[in-house]
Amino acid sequence: MKLFDGGLAPNPRRVRVFLAEKGIDVVLEPVDMAGFGHKDEPVTARNPFQRLPVLELDDGRCLTESVAICRYFEELHPEPPLFGISAFERAKVEEWNRRLELYLLAAVAAAFRHLHPAMKEWEVPQVAEWGEANKPKALSFLAIFDAHLADHRYAAGDGYSIADITGMIGIDFMKPARIVLPEGLSNVRRWYGEVSARPSAKA
Amino acid sequence: MKLFDGGLAPNPRRVRVFLAEKGIDVVLEPVDMAGFGHKDEPVTARNPFQRLPVLELDDGRCLTESVAICRYFEELHPEPPLFGISAFERAKVEEWNRRLELYLLAAVAAAFRHLHPAMKEWEVPQVAEWGEANKPKALSFLAIFDAHLADHRYAAGDGYSIADITGMIGIDFMKPARIVLPEGLSNVRRWYGEVSARPSAKA
Repeated sequence: MKLFDGGLAPNPRRVRVFLAEKGIDVVLEPVDMAGFGHKDEPVTARNPFQRLPVLELDDGRCLTESVAICRYFEELHPEPPLFGISAFERAKVEEWNRRLELYLLAAVAAAFRHLHPAMKEWEVPQVAEWGEANKPKALSFLAIFDAHLADHRYAAGDGYSIADITGMIGIDFMKPARIVLPEGLSNVRRWYGEVSARPSAKA
Repeated sequence: MKLFDGGLAPNPRRVRVFLAEKGIDVVLEPVDMAGFGHKDEPVTARNPFQRLPVLELDDGRCLTESVAICRYFEELHPEPPLFGISAFERAKVEEWNRRLELYLLAAVAAAFRHLHPAMKEWEVPQVAEWGEANKPKALSFLAIFDAHLADHRYAAGDGYSIADITGMIGIDFMKPARIVLPEGLSNVRRWYGEVSARPSAKA
């Protein structure tokens, strides 16, 4: 199999960190997203939505959407579990992965795409007012997440999971989006320090 | 267990349709979302993000996020499977459920929330330009989805799944969002007719 990879972008990195946590080696096919390589034929033929990453299996079938690709690897290589084990844990991982994606990562991405000059050709139309509106959304989320982390080592509970990967990448993406992590939030800082120190974070 | 339900809103309906497909009866606790009941103590204490639905288990633990709640019921009651069976199928269901949620339902919801006068107190600030920008996003998605459905009976392949529930609700939500399903798109119409005719669609 082969993973069409998008370098610095958050979603391709989610899958690379996940693979690093699993200790799975997959052949990467780098795509130059800065040069709009994801709009060219090799990606478009495999994903009509022209987004990365794309996983191509040996029989030619393709999978897209980072979480779907991660779930596929979880099924093939269950250890270490990154989607939870019991029914309730699996639902909790889904819950927190979604919260961190929809309320943090998506809000940070909207601020970046709608406000950063380099995104002018990427997000058409850029709507600055919508970009600005997303900054307080991300910060409100972080205040509630901080309270949650007072009693939980990781996002979804006692065990590291895909939700921590999504959250770490959401925090990292705040830098290019020019959103400053507020003073305080000591639980978020403790958690972020811990998940960022894992070797997988370099993937 | 008890499901704090939000009536007409799309996400609470996703869970009700899912439960109807599974033939599972759960006690519903109706919350008056029009009167902002989801901001009151009973919901806030169970979900600090003040969103519905919320599932409360008999031991008091709670789950939020529609897809997480559905996944919990899938684990408890695997038949009929609505998240796929094989590793590849499960990933395909995840892929299409995400596409239908992120590229269709979320775009339609953004058009509704940012343009409809009744949403003024719900979406602060309402950004009309962003609402308008989402209409072509939803329509571009539907054109690609139509091509996909030329070869597939259901969204994720041969079997009905949670992706069809998300998609059906996305199409239904186009009406209050004032987005008209374009002429043509005969495969989307065929699929929508089929999934809407299931008894679960009335849930």
